[in-house]
Amino acid sequence: MSPVKGGIDLGGTKVLAVVVGPGSRVVGEAKRPTPREGRPSDVVAQVAATMQEAADAAGVSVESLSGVGVGSPGVIDAEAGTVSGAGNLPGWEGTHAMAPELSEMLGGVTVKLGNDVQVAVDGEYALGAGRDSSSLLGVWWGTGVGGGIILNGRPWVGRGAAGEIGHVVVKRGGARCTCGRNGCMEAYAGRGAMEIEARRLYKRGRDTELFEIMEKRGRERLQSGVWARALERNDPLAVKLIDRAVNALGAGVASVVNVLDVETVVVGGGLGSRLGAPYVERIRAAMLPHLFASERPADVVLAELGDRGGAVGASLLVGRRPARRRRTAAAG
Amino acid sequence: MSPVKGGIDLGGTKVLAVVVGPGSRVVGEAKRPTPREGRPSDVVAQVAATMQEAADAAGVSVESLSGVGVGSPGVIDAEAGTVSGAGNLPGWEGTHAMAPELSEMLGGVTVKLGNDVQVAVDGEYALGAGRDSSSLLGVWWGTGVGGGIILNGRPWVGRGAAGEIGHVVVKRGGARCTCGRNGCMEAYAGRGAMEIEARRLYKRGRDTELFEIMEKRGRERLQSGVWARALERNDPLAVKLIDRAVNALGAGVASVVNVLDVETVVVGGGLGSRLGAPYVERIRAAMLPHLFASERPADVVLAELGDRGGAVGASLLVGRRPARRRRTAAAG
Repeated sequence: MSPVKGGIDLGGTKVLAVVVGPGSRVVGEAKRPTPREGRPSDVVAQVAATMQEAADAAGVSVESLSGVGVGSPGVIDAEAGTVSGAGNLPGWEGTHAMAPELSEMLGGVTVKLGNDVQVAVDGEYALGAGRDSSSLLGVWWGTGVGGGIILNGRPWVGRGAAGEIGHVVVKRGGARCTCGRNGCMEAYAGRGAMEIEARRLYKRGRDTELFEIMEKRGRERLQSGVWARALERNDPLAVKLIDRAVNALGAGVASVVNVLDVETVVVGGGLGSRLGAPYVERIRAAMLPHLFASERPADVVLAELGDRGGAVGASLLVGRRPARRRRTAAAG
Repeated sequence: MSPVKGGIDLGGTKVLAVVVGPGSRVVGEAKRPTPREGRPSDVVAQVAATMQEAADAAGVSVESLSGVGVGSPGVIDAEAGTVSGAGNLPGWEGTHAMAPELSEMLGGVTVKLGNDVQVAVDGEYALGAGRDSSSLLGVWWGTGVGGGIILNGRPWVGRGAAGEIGHVVVKRGGARCTCGRNGCMEAYAGRGAMEIEARRLYKRGRDTELFEIMEKRGRERLQSGVWARALERNDPLAVKLIDRAVNALGAGVASVVNVLDVETVVVGGGLGSRLGAPYVERIRAAMLPHLFASERPADVVLAELGDRGGAVGASLLVGRRPARRRRTAAAG
C-alpha cells in the first residue's frame, strides 16, 4: 500500500486538503473556499478539486494515494459513506452519498468519512497534544461546542452521534440553545449563542465595543478574533459573556470527565485556539469544583496542530479498520 | 480451568456470595450481614466465610473454584487488589489490600476486584436487560446514583473512576450534594439527598406520611419501600421529591447519552428496582427533551437480574483479561 494518503477538512468556509507521507508529514497542501450556493455535488466537486491541487503540490497523482479521509460536518454514516443534515453546506439538509461520489471524481481512490471534530481530535491524539495519552476528550470550542472521544487509543463514536458534549445539560430550565433545547453547555459557551446574547444586550443599550471591532474588521459575525480583541480591551460585555462561557465549560466538561475518567482534555476549535493557553487554564480551574476525582484531575491542554489538524486527522481514517458497531458475541 | 467460579456482592448491609456454573447458572448461594464494627480485615473474614458457605451449598470446595470476583464499594485498584475509601464499611477510610487477603483466606484461589455498580451492570450486559446491546449505560438509582459503562462489549472504567454519573452537573449553582459539590444529579435524585430534603421540609411543617410509614416499618431511614408506599398513597411530599428526582435523572442521563450514544440504558439500584417499570418509563420521557439524537433515542429498560445481579456480575471478573489502562503504542 502506498504510504502517501490524502486528508480533507471540509468546513463551512473553506476546504483544506493535505497529502501526508510517512509519519503523517505534510508533503502537499491546498485550500479553496467552500461553495456558498448550489447543491451537495457542487461541494463535492470543490473538495475533489482541492484534493487534486494538493496532490499536484506534492508531485503525486491522486490515483496513487492509498486513500483519502474526509472530516465533514453533519451526521456521518461511515459504512454507507453518507453525510446528512450538514446545515453549514449549501443544499445539504438531506442525505448525500459523498464518499462514492468523491471516489469517482478522484479516479476510484478509496474515500473514508469521519466527523470533523472527531478527526481533529484523532489528529491531536496521534500527533499533537494527546500523543502521550491513551484516553482523551477533545473539546472543540467554536460556533458550537463539539466533542471527540478517544478511549484505549480508538475513537468512540457510539452509534454515530457520540461526543455531543455541547448538549450536555449544565442548567435544567436554563438558557435556550440554538438547537432548540434548554440549558445545554453550548447555550452558554457556543460562539453562536454568545453572539445572539451579545446582540440582544447591545440592542437593550448595553455598552460594548464588540460590534465596533467587528465592523472595523469588515466582519458580519463576532468571530473569534473579535472576541479576543474585545477581551484585550477589557470590554465589560465581552468579559461577562466569556466568563459565563468558561463557567459553563467548567461544569459541562467536568461532568463528562466524571463519566469517562479520561487522562487528558484537549481544548481546540476556533475560539479555543484563538484565546489559547490562559483560557484553557481558566477552563481547568472552572472544572475543579465539579470534578469527582478532584485529587487526580485530568490534564487540560491546548490543541497543538493548528489549522491543518483537521485535514491531517482526516488522513488517519485511511487504513483504519472500522469501529465495531454491532454486538458480535454474547459474553458470559 | 474449572467451569465453576465464585461471585460476591459486598454491600454496606449484607454480603451475598454465589457459586456459578456453566452459563452463569447459580449452583450455590449464601448471605451474611456485613460487620458494622471492626476493621477491614473483619469484613474480609466475613466475605470469606460467606463464600465458603456458598461453596458448601454448591457441594464444591473453594479451592476448586477457578476464581472469585468481588464487587465492592469504594475506589478499586484492580491491578493492586486494593479498595480505598469504602465509607459504608467499618474502618475502611483508607486503603486495604482486600484481594490478597481474601485469596489467602480462601486457600489461594485467585480473587479479582471490581466496582460494585460496574459488576452489576456487567451482569445485566452479559445475562440481563442489556444482553442484546453492545454498548450500555447502567444507572444505579439508590442511596446515591452510580453508573456503569459497557462499550463494544467491554467495561469502560477509565483510570478507575469512570461512571460517576451521579456527579454530572444538572444545575450549575444548584442544590448541595452529599459529596459537598453543588448541582450534581445525585443532589436531586439520590435517596440519601432526598431524605435530607424530606427531613428538612418535614421539620418546617410540611405534611407527609413518609416518616410515619418509616416508623411503622421499624426503619430509621427512608428506604426504597418507604418511598414506594408513600407514592402509592399519593403523599404530596413524596410525589414532589420523586418528580424532582425523575427530572434530574432525565437531564443527567440524557447528557451522558449525548456523550456516549449507547444503545441501551439499564435502570437498576434499590430505588430503581423497587419503583420499577412505570418509573423507568418516566425517566425515559424526562430524557427526551434533552436528547440530541432524539429521533433515535437509546432504549431505557429496567434491570432484570434482581438481588443476585451484583454477585453474578462479579463472577464475570474471573478469567477476564484486565482492561488496558496505559498507552501501548502510538497511532499514526
